[in-house]
Amino acid sequence: MTCPLPAENIARGADWLREGPEADVVVSSRVRLARNVAGMSFPGRMNGGESTRLLRLSQAAVSCLRVNTASVGPVPAAETDRLIWVSIGDLSPLDRTLLVERHLISKEHAKNDRFRAACFSLPDERLSIMINEEDHLRLQCVMPGLSLSAAWSALDDVDDQIESRVDIAYMPQLGYLTACPTNVGCAVRMSVMLHLPAIRLSGEMERVKRAAKDMNLTVRGFYGEGSEAAGDLFQISNQTTLGRSEPQLCEQIERMVVPQVVAYERRMREELMGKKRRYLEDQVFRALGTLRYSRLITPEEATANLSLARLGVFTGMIRDIDPQAVTQLILLTQPAHLQRLLGREMDQQKRREARADLIRHRLDGV
Amino acid sequence: MTCPLPAENIARGADWLREGPEADVVVSSRVRLARNVAGMSFPGRMNGGESTRLLRLSQAAVSCLRVNTASVGPVPAAETDRLIWVSIGDLSPLDRTLLVERHLISKEHAKNDRFRAACFSLPDERLSIMINEEDHLRLQCVMPGLSLSAAWSALDDVDDQIESRVDIAYMPQLGYLTACPTNVGCAVRMSVMLHLPAIRLSGEMERVKRAAKDMNLTVRGFYGEGSEAAGDLFQISNQTTLGRSEPQLCEQIERMVVPQVVAYERRMREELMGKKRRYLEDQVFRALGTLRYSRLITPEEATANLSLARLGVFTGMIRDIDPQAVTQLILLTQPAHLQRLLGREMDQQKRREARADLIRHRLDGV
Repeated sequence: MTCPLPAENIARGADWLREGPEADVVVSSRVRLARNVAGMSFPGRMNGGESTRLLRLSQAAVSCLRVNTASVGPVPAAETDRLIWVSIGDLSPLDRTLLVERHLISKEHAKNDRFRAACFSLPDERLSIMINEEDHLRLQCVMPGLSLSAAWSALDDVDDQIESRVDIAYMPQLGYLTACPTNVGCAVRMSVMLHLPAIRLSGEMERVKRAAKDMNLTVRGFYGEGSEAAGDLFQISNQTTLGRSEPQLCEQIERMVVPQVVAYERRMREELMGKKRRYLEDQVFRALGTLRYSRLITPEEATANLSLARLGVFTGMIRDIDPQAVTQLILLTQPAHLQRLLGREMDQQKRREARADLIRHRLDGV
Repeated sequence: MTCPLPAENIARGADWLREGPEADVVVSSRVRLARNVAGMSFPGRMNGGESTRLLRLSQAAVSCLRVNTASVGPVPAAETDRLIWVSIGDLSPLDRTLLVERHLISKEHAKNDRFRAACFSLPDERLSIMINEEDHLRLQCVMPGLSLSAAWSALDDVDDQIESRVDIAYMPQLGYLTACPTNVGCAVRMSVMLHLPAIRLSGEMERVKRAAKDMNLTVRGFYGEGSEAAGDLFQISNQTTLGRSEPQLCEQIERMVVPQVVAYERRMREELMGKKRRYLEDQVFRALGTLRYSRLITPEEATANLSLARLGVFTGMIRDIDPQAVTQLILLTQPAHLQRLLGREMDQQKRREARADLIRHRLDGV
């Protein structure tokens, strides 16, 4: 199968990396729902026949979806004009990695190719569904900036349509049944991705993590569970769902927790700009120098420097670069994106060359 | 005492860092002679009376010198129109360091301020004399590029004039007598400062050092004995002088040894440019990026990056920078130079700021 994503989508980066509300600190907002078909074993215990039935049933349900993931309020407009269905087994390893890098499917989903599928909305990619991952269905909606309630409302609508066609496992006392007990309840994960370079530079990240934990929230890296906080990007999300409604969670994260962290990051930025201005400028401009001058660069070094450059752009220290260009490069410099952008597979050394060239080109061209 | 060097000398850097013959690899050539007054104890064993007599006698001899350190062949022209005499004890700690950085006096000479003096030619600074260092007189002539015989001939002339006025300790069987036995003989040190980044990047520096040792030559760093090879600058000089004439030594170093090392460095540069071009470009341009973008920089980091930028300029990779500007910055970014250039004393943090500003200004202004 050829690449399931249009070339222009790959070239421009991801919709969820565009500038949304509170873009200086908040990168994107994401809601994920776990749903299982009533009377069917969970994916971990399914046989081939059941899996095939799940795929058929899901594809039928998905084909009838009317999706509206358009903007709400200040979120940049996006439009879904079609849904695309892909069987993971049909994808090349490169394209699986591409979808993982874009956060359209999970790493785990990409690994196992028997009876697994995914579905996502084009051209915006805001809605995506994994079929036969840890649960039968994992529905996701991502939007740029602080827009959790908008993402929730779009996904809630999709969920309603699916539940009107498929009998979903639900018990009044417990809520939705899921493969992992921690998801039982409303089976929702709401997460906001934050760019927190000043908190990290000030050595205050552990404090934020502890505070989040006290509120039953968890802090993860760019690629979710177990991933490093590449580029000072942290995802704050709920840990449990039992006994809480989706609007309560959404309210807590979007209106209470995130604004506090955003304010804290901004205060740390101001403090650095005031008391440690030279130090901050040095960090920011050295990063820009490395991005503009290196000829070989690893994804880790690129991401770390792009993060500091992003901080420079949003604090007004760097004036000659489009913030979009910097943020999208965090995605575009990932291995699969790089190879798809250049239209050929490359070994690690060639990728390091191509990555440096791409960054230089995109940051100089503005 | 105010600074003994004219401000314009400090601002433009050092004459010996100008481009001379074989400038791509050879930075400068230096000849140093050790001379002691007959019938007087060596400096280490002198009393105050003898020291005072030495200073008086030396100042009288120096005041009559007619110095010609002008160019010979392709060495850039320079002119001596006066000699300046300074008592080390009259100099501020900052100005002593300044003279050490310019290679006009040794670190040891700067430390002990009783009965010590120095003399040097202005505006070119090619001739310098230390009085009452390890020997009574240490005469030095430095010229840019590979110009050892020119430096030798200028210094030989100065030596003749001094010996016509002062009775110098000399024994026909041994030659000139010196405080340290290793200098006995013609008591000359001839050294050539080489810029060897490609040999260092290729991991071949130890081989060069061994080869030099086999020829009774020694390889030292930028600031002589015991100093690190800052900026990939290495001084190759003779180890002993007993039983060899000055022209023999000069011939060996200038016509046999240095051309071999120069050819080796050029071969390594070509090899890197061919087989490891990306790696080399990455090293060179990252260095340039750091120089142009950092806002805080230590002298060590500045020197290391200036060295790579110099390599970039002479290999044609970097085209928008004057080679002079890069080479002179190796000197101008040293602590005392920086403070004299800016006209104020600064702590380490302020120097790091000023150093980054100076580099950015000088490398962007071209």
